[in-house]
Amino acid sequence: MASDVAAGDLFADLPDAASEERFDSLLARPGLRILRIVSNGQATPDGEWYDQPGDEWVVVLRGRAGVLIEGEGEPRQLGPGEYLFLPALCRHRVAWTSADEPTVWLAVHIEPAAS
Amino acid sequence: MASDVAAGDLFADLPDAASEERFDSLLARPGLRILRIVSNGQATPDGEWYDQPGDEWVVVLRGRAGVLIEGEGEPRQLGPGEYLFLPALCRHRVAWTSADEPTVWLAVHIEPAAS
Repeated sequence: MASDVAAGDLFADLPDAASEERFDSLLARPGLRILRIVSNGQATPDGEWYDQPGDEWVVVLRGRAGVLIEGEGEPRQLGPGEYLFLPALCRHRVAWTSADEPTVWLAVHIEPAAS
Repeated sequence: MASDVAAGDLFADLPDAASEERFDSLLARPGLRILRIVSNGQATPDGEWYDQPGDEWVVVLRGRAGVLIEGEGEPRQLGPGEYLFLPALCRHRVAWTSADEPTVWLAVHIEPAAS
């Protein structure tokens, strides 16, 4: 089975601070996706919200970010190791990410069961 | 929806180096489990193998570990950010973990579809 083992490094191949936010799919299964996201000062555009049909579990592993949950007054500040579980349809936006270093997120998206 | 948002810190509440390996469930869904594992020098007992019916995606976030895949000559060495995808029934064992600091793993276990 050894040849089926895949390996990688979440902190390798980080894009430059000046480049765009980047999404890398690490694993995709029916109903499940694991992503690495690298941000460099980006935020969700004003007035836009994420409003996903599935649950999301997300952790910041490097850098810092602020995530605003609809109905909360201030963004939740996340640093390395800090995670959030965002249930399906929980409207949220990334208020800010570190401008002076990459922010590395690991996100697990759980799709709703097919109906 | 804000009250449904759960939050935590993977690097908080780390057990002492002298204590037992610890498993904390961060999320459990049908077919999916996200776990934090903290090791302190432990290894899989000699002659024992993990041989799980589901796939596992696992990353070391702090510390170091060696994971031996059956059929490979040497353990794969994992440090912070380094991950493995271990397909179902891939026999593997933890050969070693750092003795002088906690090793923090994040594991995503994907159960096989119910038959």
